Amino acid sequence: MINVTIWNEYIHEKESEKVAQVYPNGIHGAIAEMLGKSGEYNIRTATLDMEECGLTDEVLNSTDVLIWWGHMKHSDVPDEIAEKVRQRVLAGMGFIPLHSAHLSKPFVKLMGTLCRSKWRENDEKERIWVIEPSHPICKNLPEYIELPMEETYGERFEIPAPDELIFISWFSGGEVFRSGCCYKRGLGKVFYFRPGHEEYPTFYRDDITQILKNAIEWAKPSEGPVPTLGHFEALENVKDKFEGQDESLKKHTYIK
Amino acid sequence: MINVTIWNEYIHEKESEKVAQVYPNGIHGAIAEMLGKSGEYNIRTATLDMEECGLTDEVLNSTDVLIWWGHMKHSDVPDEIAEKVRQRVLAGMGFIPLHSAHLSKPFVKLMGTLCRSKWRENDEKERIWVIEPSHPICKNLPEYIELPMEETYGERFEIPAPDELIFISWFSGGEVFRSGCCYKRGLGKVFYFRPGHEEYPTFYRDDITQILKNAIEWAKPSEGPVPTLGHFEALENVKDKFEGQDESLKKHTYIK
Amino acid sequence: MINVTIWNEYIHEKESEKVAQVYPNGIHGAIAEMLGKSGEYNIRTATLDMEECGLTDEVLNSTDVLIWWGHMKHSDVPDEIAEKVRQRVLAGMGFIPLHSAHLSKPFVKLMGTLCRSKWRENDEKERIWVIEPSHPICKNLPEYIELPMEETYGERFEIPAPDELIFISWFSGGEVFRSGCCYKRGLGKVFYFRPGHEEYPTFYRDDITQILKNAIEWAKPSEGPVPTLGHFEALENVKDKFEGQDESLKKHTYIK
Amino acid sequence: MINVTIWNEYIHEKESEKVAQVYPNGIHGAIAEMLGKSGEYNIRTATLDMEECGLTDEVLNSTDVLIWWGHMKHSDVPDEIAEKVRQRVLAGMGFIPLHSAHLSKPFVKLMGTLCRSKWRENDEKERIWVIEPSHPICKNLPEYIELPMEETYGERFEIPAPDELIFISWFSGGEVFRSGCCYKRGLGKVFYFRPGHEEYPTFYRDDITQILKNAIEWAKPSEGPVPTLGHFEALENVKDKFEGQDESLKKHTYIK
Repeated sequence: MINVTIWNEYIHEKESEKVAQVYPNGIHGAIAEMLGKSGEYNIRTATLDMEECGLTDEVLNSTDVLIWWGHMKHSDVPDEIAEKVRQRVLAGMGFIPLHSAHLSKPFVKLMGTLCRSKWRENDEKERIWVIEPSHPICKNLPEYIELPMEETYGERFEIPAPDELIFISWFSGGEVFRSGCCYKRGLGKVFYFRPGHEEYPTFYRDDITQILKNAIEWAKPSEGPVPTLGHFEALENVKDKFEGQDESLKKHTYIK
Repeated sequence: MINVTIWNEYIHEKESEKVAQVYPNGIHGAIAEMLGKSGEYNIRTATLDMEECGLTDEVLNSTDVLIWWGHMKHSDVPDEIAEKVRQRVLAGMGFIPLHSAHLSKPFVKLMGTLCRSKWRENDEKERIWVIEPSHPICKNLPEYIELPMEETYGERFEIPAPDELIFISWFSGGEVFRSGCCYKRGLGKVFYFRPGHEEYPTFYRDDITQILKNAIEWAKPSEGPVPTLGHFEALENVKDKFEGQDESLKKHTYIK
Repeated sequence: MINVTIWNEYIHEKESEKVAQVYPNGIHGAIAEMLGKSGEYNIRTATLDMEECGLTDEVLNSTDVLIWWGHMKHSDVPDEIAEKVRQRVLAGMGFIPLHSAHLSKPFVKLMGTLCRSKWRENDEKERIWVIEPSHPICKNLPEYIELPMEETYGERFEIPAPDELIFISWFSGGEVFRSGCCYKRGLGKVFYFRPGHEEYPTFYRDDITQILKNAIEWAKPSEGPVPTLGHFEALENVKDKFEGQDESLKKHTYIK
Repeated sequence: MINVTIWNEYIHEKESEKVAQVYPNGIHGAIAEMLGKSGEYNIRTATLDMEECGLTDEVLNSTDVLIWWGHMKHSDVPDEIAEKVRQRVLAGMGFIPLHSAHLSKPFVKLMGTLCRSKWRENDEKERIWVIEPSHPICKNLPEYIELPMEETYGERFEIPAPDELIFISWFSGGEVFRSGCCYKRGLGKVFYFRPGHEEYPTFYRDDITQILKNAIEWAKPSEGPVPTLGHFEALENVKDKFEGQDESLKKHTYIK
């Protein structure tokens, strides 16, 4: 079974009645419930208010794929935790930042860029168009998904060009957004997925759940080689072969 | 004129007689001399031993392209300086880390990965093969460049897949290396270029100088739009149009 | 001066009064007029009704960048002409297919895929969003361009993932489209640009003209190396060195 | 079970005693034998000398992944067969051209470029370095594979930049080569893999077989959406909304 940890800031749900109505068990609870139906995953949740944000070494080291939702309190995640998450991704853990987690510390550190965008809360319609239908993350999807209301995000999204661009979103108010972005980083894989604003029931949808399941399967640790690094012996004693040429080369050919 | 700043750690040249013989004026001095021949650039140099590493706000803010050579003392560059360099790149400054600067703070921060590799000092031959001959960085180059002796680097190089892979190096001892890597990051451009170890006169070569000149031209700040970020108005009042549907949507369609 | 050849099918303008009103001198005439204002180019035009489609060897061999508009009569372009265009691109000529030229023979041959898409003629609004503001094709552009009415295209667009995705279009009817796509192919560069339906005055716009000018500058032949191909001598007599090992290797190590 | 068809030109093995000793049952036979050990595939073979090259509609339409080895007689494969293969790939079939199949008709058609390279038959050593260890095609591989003797290929390899570059080969004679190249084309996936010259027992190796198995798993048809194409209705009657503006727009705003 794949070990999935769902991390949630878990603040809106406690502070806003409107949000609490949509996500009474928190966004993490909704995602856990939807993913849990299949029995395919060993699911844990973790939130900002837990000790070490719920991301102890024990939890992180036994996590195959980490899903992350955060918005208002990115800066409350300690740098050391964010750095641990980054290191785990580089060592092979899958990472799926959702929606406003594009500004979360671990994602920003992994991208190297500022990751800002345009945004607007305006109850607009979003259409998520599939751009690469043969990608494993598009398994069992229709050619587009329509969300009746979502927060609007707009380009330019300050990210490195994705290794694979899977989805582009259309918003009724006039914007587009690269809303499904795949990255390989170190030995790990990162899938940024744009929806789900806290005020809309996006994470209860079967199609969104399908995407998360596909992304978990895609992002789980690979079974490839772990490269050796640092000093490395030559295939054979190359130096001896070239030794005789050294002085003349240095003196006549290209040293000044 | 393009404002080029050449940053050098400048330690090997002062501490090793062997290196001092090759680069009596420092690696920065050699690059400055070679680039200066054409009179095309406004060149400054900066070193680790200068105040603020020679990278004051005044210098950075008036730099179009920053070349960076570092090796032993990456950690002596203060985090704030490294962060300032990163921010300047994201705002449009070109950045050309050379050789062991693949482990420099600004490059690692911009990549998000660990950027380690294999290495060996063995006087091996390097052949730098042109992979994308139509790229502007390949202007006036032959199809490969042979360096009689260089430090060997080997894959796996822990970088994000380059936006454009321009050169691949062959080493006589059995390794390959992605030695010319282009990245767009924020509004800036980054070109990582693999050669020149401090013990070899690589930076006096005309072909290497040609590559640096091509890279400067490619990496200099663009004249494209500076995107607006943050809250952004809709094209028209989309919300009103959908307002009437809210409750039914929430109750019947896809809320639980 | 850059030699620009503008190829146009030139049928709609002769057969439809509505189109003739918008483009009395043909789409090629309008583009030629707009590009010609700066005096930077040596401009020729060619049309389907000319001998050899106006693309004789003499014309093609002296063309730096070929702009191509076609729609109804792609199949009337002889295969040999399309193949000549492809060969010229692979040898270094820039190629800029516009709008419905995504289904033109030379583009389809260069892509290898079918290049179909969704479409609708519905007088919708198009917003072309800049995704990579530091790319040379975005020089002097605003962050988006709004076309009050255009033909709508929609994903999925059956193209190889672009080497660089520069623009994404938003359409008021609910679609998105990768509308500025850069490819390196052989020694040549290809820029697919989505607008200009024949019924709208898109090609008279200054912003569209700016994009074409940027694309010409980007796509013009490079001055990089022309790689040698075919049989190629080894650096040194490698075979001799390994000769002695042949038989044992074959017998014992990995032959069955 | 995945339906794998192995196509082989099957000429060298019949005409050269040396090759016949290495591949007494043909290269296709060796690959079939190695892949067959696991019982995971439904394997068929097809050769140039069969009717329709063994690639009847029935065979092609029931093939999930097509492996292709060819060298001397690329031009003997009829254009219609090559086109059928291309169409099947674009419709979702996986395609794995091996070694000199980089010049096979189906691969060249799918790439759009000429796909030539340097080459030399010199019994050189090849080291295939893993560049993207987390890619599914690298499952259960070491960080590099050493082939004691192989035909040498060298860059520049005239291909579109791969969507994902998995392997780079080093050759003892001084060349490098992009030897593991992933492409998505239409709904299908293509993996070009550089080794095995007909004179060496490369296809009997367990590591090479592992790569082929990984590639089959990666390239098999996806279960993603099949996009609709052609005319497509708007989300709502957008045209009506903009209708009133037409004339003024055309007259005053941006028509000449």
